[in-house]
Amino acid sequence: MTARRAGLEWALATTIAAVDPVDAAAVEAARTRQETLTKPRGSMGVLEELGHRLCGSYGVCPPPVPEPVAVAVFAGDHGVHAQGVSPWPQEVTVQMVANIIGGGAVINALARQVGASVTVVDVGVAGGTTEQPGLLVRKVRRCTADLTLGPAMTVDDATAAVEVGIEVANLLVGQGNRLLVTGDLGIANTTPAAALVAVFTGRDAAEVTGRGAGSDDAMLAHKVEVIRGAIRRSGATADRPLEALAAVGGFEHAALVGFLLAAASRRTPVVLDGVIACSAALVARALCPGVTAYLVAGHRSRESGASVAMQALGLEPLLDLGLRLGEGTGAALAVPLVQAAARLLREVATFGSAGVSGASGT
Amino acid sequence: MTARRAGLEWALATTIAAVDPVDAAAVEAARTRQETLTKPRGSMGVLEELGHRLCGSYGVCPPPVPEPVAVAVFAGDHGVHAQGVSPWPQEVTVQMVANIIGGGAVINALARQVGASVTVVDVGVAGGTTEQPGLLVRKVRRCTADLTLGPAMTVDDATAAVEVGIEVANLLVGQGNRLLVTGDLGIANTTPAAALVAVFTGRDAAEVTGRGAGSDDAMLAHKVEVIRGAIRRSGATADRPLEALAAVGGFEHAALVGFLLAAASRRTPVVLDGVIACSAALVARALCPGVTAYLVAGHRSRESGASVAMQALGLEPLLDLGLRLGEGTGAALAVPLVQAAARLLREVATFGSAGVSGASGT
Repeated sequence: MTARRAGLEWALATTIAAVDPVDAAAVEAARTRQETLTKPRGSMGVLEELGHRLCGSYGVCPPPVPEPVAVAVFAGDHGVHAQGVSPWPQEVTVQMVANIIGGGAVINALARQVGASVTVVDVGVAGGTTEQPGLLVRKVRRCTADLTLGPAMTVDDATAAVEVGIEVANLLVGQGNRLLVTGDLGIANTTPAAALVAVFTGRDAAEVTGRGAGSDDAMLAHKVEVIRGAIRRSGATADRPLEALAAVGGFEHAALVGFLLAAASRRTPVVLDGVIACSAALVARALCPGVTAYLVAGHRSRESGASVAMQALGLEPLLDLGLRLGEGTGAALAVPLVQAAARLLREVATFGSAGVSGASGT
Repeated sequence: MTARRAGLEWALATTIAAVDPVDAAAVEAARTRQETLTKPRGSMGVLEELGHRLCGSYGVCPPPVPEPVAVAVFAGDHGVHAQGVSPWPQEVTVQMVANIIGGGAVINALARQVGASVTVVDVGVAGGTTEQPGLLVRKVRRCTADLTLGPAMTVDDATAAVEVGIEVANLLVGQGNRLLVTGDLGIANTTPAAALVAVFTGRDAAEVTGRGAGSDDAMLAHKVEVIRGAIRRSGATADRPLEALAAVGGFEHAALVGFLLAAASRRTPVVLDGVIACSAALVARALCPGVTAYLVAGHRSRESGASVAMQALGLEPLLDLGLRLGEGTGAALAVPLVQAAARLLREVATFGSAGVSGASGT
């Protein structure tokens, strides 16, 4: 076990070491170019700064249009489900894996809309799954342990899940994808996500816990108590990120940590979906502060923990549509905006080339 | 002149008469269907109600995916430019017409992103233009009159511009487009837009006037005074919509009024861009209250008049990206969201068909 663990740590360490700072010269070139395009200064709002960030990530100005796009949906189950933190039965996780493979889930419809592929990764689903096109089976365990009774995962298992995420990001980037999208699936997975957000931002559980897929008031209050108790019991702290991840996280959260780090190491931007991805981003940042420069906040989920996490990460979401589904749906919807930000810098004529007069005082 | 005017009024009157109420049964079927889809109830936020509205517009559930998509950019110039309400020279209007025809404007880049066509319609540009692919020349006049000195347009000319918009919407729908997007182009055109918003909402000019394409504080204050004075001088009121449109509007505003009405008469939803389109929507609603059911607010422009108008229209914008460009850019960016709303109802599996268990208490 020592050898295996040393190997895993080596994979994570090399990935972290490969995360370079973004290209400051490309960002500067983008800012200069933006001012020459045939539009009033600043008139494209947040898409302008997003375009500059893309140049920094890709290391070139103008940036490529971020395509092809791949959504990775990491799926897992959660021992804390036994504590009654979700109105949905645990079997829905594996049923929804099948639904996505069959093309019938919301993420499939939205991925078709934006021209993205969808890959499901079973990193800890309780039910049985079979490797097939669109599904990678990388079960670390069937379901985490109940985080109210002890650590959700051993540090070894959490690290193994992180490594799955690294593998998947490297696979998707190796296939030519230029933009990755985080997805997640797992009944009760907003409970570990809220716990991670609380640990990594120092906020109380009540401030970062939402209704997930439909908790009522009583269940929400219970969920807050469960999370508060688990954090107290575990002694999880932000200065020991892997231990905290193992103590109160989940397999899909851990896989997303690796996914974000490996994408950054490949200079590939990632669009974050909701609270699961945002909680993973906090862990990833604790391991490697440079990762955040490669992240784009897709949307403001209705889960309060997502907003708290994005604020802590210094990210402003592109969309605010009142979504609370997961699967990567909010992030997928933001993909055309990310691509549009790149197109502005690539395709819009300059005042000089188009023969358009400038404004007075400019 | 009497015969011509009678003809124009007939075209407008028949268009208004052809605007049917949306299909309430299709909306009800959509609401019922939405509850059966494999996702937590309400989890797709504003896209759910948007999908229901699309069913109402198209008169069928599930709705078609709204494509192909056509952006119509109505271009005109404004006599009020002489009052110093914009830092840009008037020649930029005709230069930007050429830029769009050449494919180099922001709207071109964004239309490519969302797979939409772009048609420019010269309805009153001061400079000369030549009919060609992508450009319809339908000049009512070269530039409006200065609305601080008298009516911007005669009622006949305003009505002629409305009819241009009717012609263009009918043309685009006839070509098979299932979703239309409003665009506008015209140096100083936020001044008549703000004036129309003030008249049709009863708000003071200061509340609905923005910086357009880059006014500084002094110019903004002057712009407010210009608008306030013009409204006072003209006696424009919301209960005489065509007269108010002629008094303080512009040719592109008038054309957009006709465009919205004709689209609604063809049961074709229209995505509204910024303050120009929103001001036109207020006029269109005054002529035909049923038109608003076919309108989708694309984005919250930084122009305050757009927000005031959208609120008056009862529309919530899909995007809020701090844009203030015009050309249809904010509306074009919202197109994938509109299409996604339709795809949810068309493509997502039901709990029954996918074999997914429901939540407790549902």
